[in-house]
Parts: sequence; C-alpha cells; structure tokens
Amino acid sequence: MHDRISSLGEKKLISRIISRSRSVFGSSKLMGLGDDAALIDAGDDYLVLTSDLLLETRHFPDPGRPRDMGWKTVTVNMSDLAAMGSRPEGFILSAALPDLELEFFDSIMDGVIEACCHYQAPLMGGDTNEADEIILSGTAIGRAAKDRVLMKSGARPGDLVAVTGPLGVGAAGTELILSGKSTEGFEDAVERSLRPVARIEDGIILAESGLVSSATDITDGLVSELGELMDASGTGMRIYEESLPIGEEVPEIAAILGMDPLELALYYGEDFELVFTAHPAGIEELSTMMDIHVIGEVTGGGSIEMVDKDGATYKLQVRGYEHLSPA
Amino acid sequence: MHDRISSLGEKKLISRIISRSRSVFGSSKLMGLGDDAALIDAGDDYLVLTSDLLLETRHFPDPGRPRDMGWKTVTVNMSDLAAMGSRPEGFILSAALPDLELEFFDSIMDGVIEACCHYQAPLMGGDTNEADEIILSGTAIGRAAKDRVLMKSGARPGDLVAVTGPLGVGAAGTELILSGKSTEGFEDAVERSLRPVARIEDGIILAESGLVSSATDITDGLVSELGELMDASGTGMRIYEESLPIGEEVPEIAAILGMDPLELALYYGEDFELVFTAHPAGIEELSTMMDIHVIGEVTGGGSIEMVDKDGATYKLQVRGYEHLSPA
Repeated sequence: MHDRISSLGEKKLISRIISRSRSVFGSSKLMGLGDDAALIDAGDDYLVLTSDLLLETRHFPDPGRPRDMGWKTVTVNMSDLAAMGSRPEGFILSAALPDLELEFFDSIMDGVIEACCHYQAPLMGGDTNEADEIILSGTAIGRAAKDRVLMKSGARPGDLVAVTGPLGVGAAGTELILSGKSTEGFEDAVERSLRPVARIEDGIILAESGLVSSATDITDGLVSELGELMDASGTGMRIYEESLPIGEEVPEIAAILGMDPLELALYYGEDFELVFTAHPAGIEELSTMMDIHVIGEVTGGGSIEMVDKDGATYKLQVRGYEHLSPA
Repeated sequence: MHDRISSLGEKKLISRIISRSRSVFGSSKLMGLGDDAALIDAGDDYLVLTSDLLLETRHFPDPGRPRDMGWKTVTVNMSDLAAMGSRPEGFILSAALPDLELEFFDSIMDGVIEACCHYQAPLMGGDTNEADEIILSGTAIGRAAKDRVLMKSGARPGDLVAVTGPLGVGAAGTELILSGKSTEGFEDAVERSLRPVARIEDGIILAESGLVSSATDITDGLVSELGELMDASGTGMRIYEESLPIGEEVPEIAAILGMDPLELALYYGEDFELVFTAHPAGIEELSTMMDIHVIGEVTGGGSIEMVDKDGATYKLQVRGYEHLSPA
C-alpha cells in the first residue's frame, strides 16, 4: 500500500521527476531534460547546466582526505559537462558542514580550487550551511555549440560503441580502499577512486568532430549508461566481452576482494570515462585524434546483449550502481 | 591552535571562499562573486546562476508538509534571482533522500513543480541520492539585461533605503511553529514561513526601471544584508525605527513567545523581501509602480546607525541569522 522510493530505484525516480516536468512544461522548453545536463539557449551556443551533490558518508571512500573531497565534488559535475561535449565556464559550491576545523575546511576548498583551475572553471560563488555531516553540492556551467552538443539520443543501428578509457579501475580502487586492505601496488586505482579526472578534453574533441551520434559518461556504470543511450535513441546495443578494456589491475584487486572483475567493469560505476556511438568511419577518424576503445555496436534490438569470450550471446540486465535501489 | 569554522561564522566563511577564488582567478572573470548569484556573459544579457540547499532538520519548521519543502527549495533560489532583478529561466533539483514513502516524495515534487510553475521556471533536470535526512539542493538560472542587473554595489550617500514588504513576519511565523503553540489567527505568518514567495516581479520592476543603485534580498536578515550593501558600496546606512514596516502580527506573536519584535524584524531573516537603494527622485517614481517602504538613507559612514523612536542614534551590530555562528 505504501510503496517506498527504494522500490523504484534511482533511475526510475529520476524518470518520474522528468516525466512530471515534461507533462507540465512540455518538451520544447526542456532541452537536455533526461540528459546529463540541462541546455539553455544562448544564441549560437547552448549553456550547459548541471548540479550534483556528494555526501561525506557515501561518496568519499577516504574521508581523511578533505582535499580530494573538494576535487571530486568539482569533478562529478565536470563529468556531466564532458558528457555533453561542453567547455566549462564556471562552478558554484554550496556546502553544508558540521563544525569542522578551519584547516580541514581550507583543505576542502584547496581541492575545489585546484579542480576549478584544472578544468578552467572559475569558482563563481559559494554558500555554506550547517549540517551533521559534510554535504558538498556543486553546480557547473559550460558552453557548447548548438550543432555540436553531445546528447544521449541519436545512436543508429550499425554505429559502433566506444569508451574513452579503462573500465573497472575506479570501482576496484574504491572497493579496495573500503576494504581496509593494503593498497600497495595499486596506487593508480586508488588515485582514480579518490581523485578522478573528468574527460573534458575528450568530450570537446568528440563534440567538435561532429562525428558522434550519442554520448554520456559512465559514472553510474557502463551497462546502466548503455541503457540510457539505447532508451533515448530507440535502439539496442551489443557489446563484446573480449573487447572490454578492463583495467589490468582490476582482476588482481577483484581476486583480493573476492569480487567479479566483470561486475566491477560493467555495473559499479566510478569510472569517469565517456561512452559514445559513431558511424564506423567516424570511429576510425576519431581514433586518430584520441584514445578510444571500441566495445560493441548499436543494434535495432531494444536490449543490451553481450557476446562472451566463447561467442555465446546473452542479455544484460540494465542496472547500474543505483542509490535508493531495492534491497 | 585548531580554530573551528564556527569561530568565523557563515558570512566570513563565504568571504573566505570568495577571496580565495578571487586571488586565483582574478576579478574580471568572476562577475557576481559575492553577490546573490553569479553572472555569465550571454551577449546583451547576463545569465544569472545560483544554488542553495535546504535540510529537513534545519530549514523546514514543519517537516510534515512535504509539498511546502519542495516549494521552499525553489523559492530560496528564486529569491536570489529576484535580488539580481532577473527573470527565471529554469530550475534543477538535486535531492538526497532517506527511503521515503513514494507518496511523500511525490508531494515534495508537487511542491517543486507548483513553485516552478509559479515562477515560470521549468524544471530542467533532477538527480537523486541516498541520505539519512532529506536534503534538497536547488539550482536556479535567470536572465537580466547587462545594463539593468541589480548588484550589491552602487549605493551612494544621499540615496534612500527601501524594502518591498513587511518585516519580521516570516521570522515570527517560523518561531511560532517551532514553539508548538497555537497558530490560530496567525495564518498569514505561518504561510509566510512555510510557503514564502520570492519577489521576482518586484525585482524585475526595480531592475528595468534603471533607478536602483544597489539591491539584495533579506532572507538572511535585514541588518546583515544592509551590511552587505554597505560593504560592497563603501558607504554607511542609517535606518529609522519608526519607519520599519514591522508586520502587524509580529509584536503579538513576539509577546506570546517572549521575544523582541525588533530583533525578529532586524536580524532573524526568513522574510523573502528585497532591500534596495535609489536616489530620492527614483524612490518617488518607483513608489508609483509598486509597494515600497522607505526605511532610511545611505550615508558616507561605514556603519549602520539606527535612529530610535525617541530620536536617539545608535550603531547596529552587523550580524544576521548566521549558520555556523559562534556560540
């Protein structure tokens, strides 16, 4: 009788918000709704707007590194800008904080400003509130040419599917840190977990090329995001296990933790890479401009299939690392 | 040795963020930094961008009214747009939530969408996370003509100081609700506390008139915000106790609660009104277009003076309702 929001899960909850908004305001005014960021008309360009918040107890595997908290808060928002192929213009921080030591606070801010410098997104405003735990809410704004912005819709059967970097590394790093086990020898995975880098330059190359039919970031998990591209485009997807660029340390870390490396690569999230689709000729051209890994192709299907290493095909369940997901 | 952020208080903490950003990025790129919202160049216009978050346990006096939570989350952000004289273009919600009943969640969203309709700011995006309490973070974007946008700086000695509506009503309503005492007969004060309305139209009239030298909203308290105008403009302020439009129910509610009505009107905040300065001739012209209440004048001083009902003058301490303030 009294359903809870966990019975829907995060993606369906967001869809619920989106469909309510669409029914009230109509689609014409809501460019980007359901995409990684909202689009605002600015002449020849779109301004690209996104907001995402992180909580001390849930999003920072090592809360003893305040500078990384600041960095990651900027980065998660920049990743949404990257997913749209936009160039950052600025960042706003809204923080709710317990009574921290000033030094700790300053370290968070050092990380925010370091990241804002990295992404060339000036810190344009800040606000603070009081809370029981550290809550860092960011808003990022970027700009993209109207005829170049990357969207989730537009994939066509026959396009290839590619990602910009290794899979599962952020996930493996995060789980390793959370396990409390030694991280020696896995510094790169730890770094990718604590100080991820948004693929802004890759996003801009992809957008400016005009070759990309659909794109998003995979911070919520590869399969979940393939599902988003598929749903927005009205297509299906087929990926090949042997083509997945699973990070070389992922199987080793997974073995230490008793986890499945494929699960980390496909479903966990925390990889700040982009996934996109393009015509095979476009993929070839793009591969001369940047590192890309083709992992599969767009189908007419309506589902995501995986062809495993033995050549057997099976359907992947579209799920990701969902907050508020059913137990 | 180990100072805590409470030793600074909210305003100084924000100043600290702002000055760090200014030292890294320079002032030229940071229009609006330290103002109510950030400004982004969009040709003849500025896009006006703000983000503010509210917590279940701190910002909603009656957490049994989820629809009002949604409404207020939109309104606090719209008030920042109003303070800059901008017209809303859209709103983004980023929510972190415990496992609420779906009905409760939908009521929050009803309030968000109702407010978005009221302010003609389409809900352009939404994101959810999991948290122990309800955290509603909003981002609002608006637009204002470059030569018309309202800023905190620009007040000149000899200008008059005015507000757009009654003082202390939101504060009195909030304290009455929190006291658990009967609210009978004080429905307006309760409404202003739970469902405040941002002065978007007033802000637009003020901006388009070209008559206003400085402006902000007073949600953090009148005196605190006068201090902001004064600091940004390099002036002083003098206000007259007998000119303050303290809401008629405020003394009565204050008496019930054993509080000082003047304290509620000057320092508490929760009034979603605007305070602004303009040349006396401008004030006269504006008063034909909207309800305004002149409360004082801009001085060369560098402090805020109040002339009390007996004609005695004394300095007001610049403080407001500060989160993270010293005990």
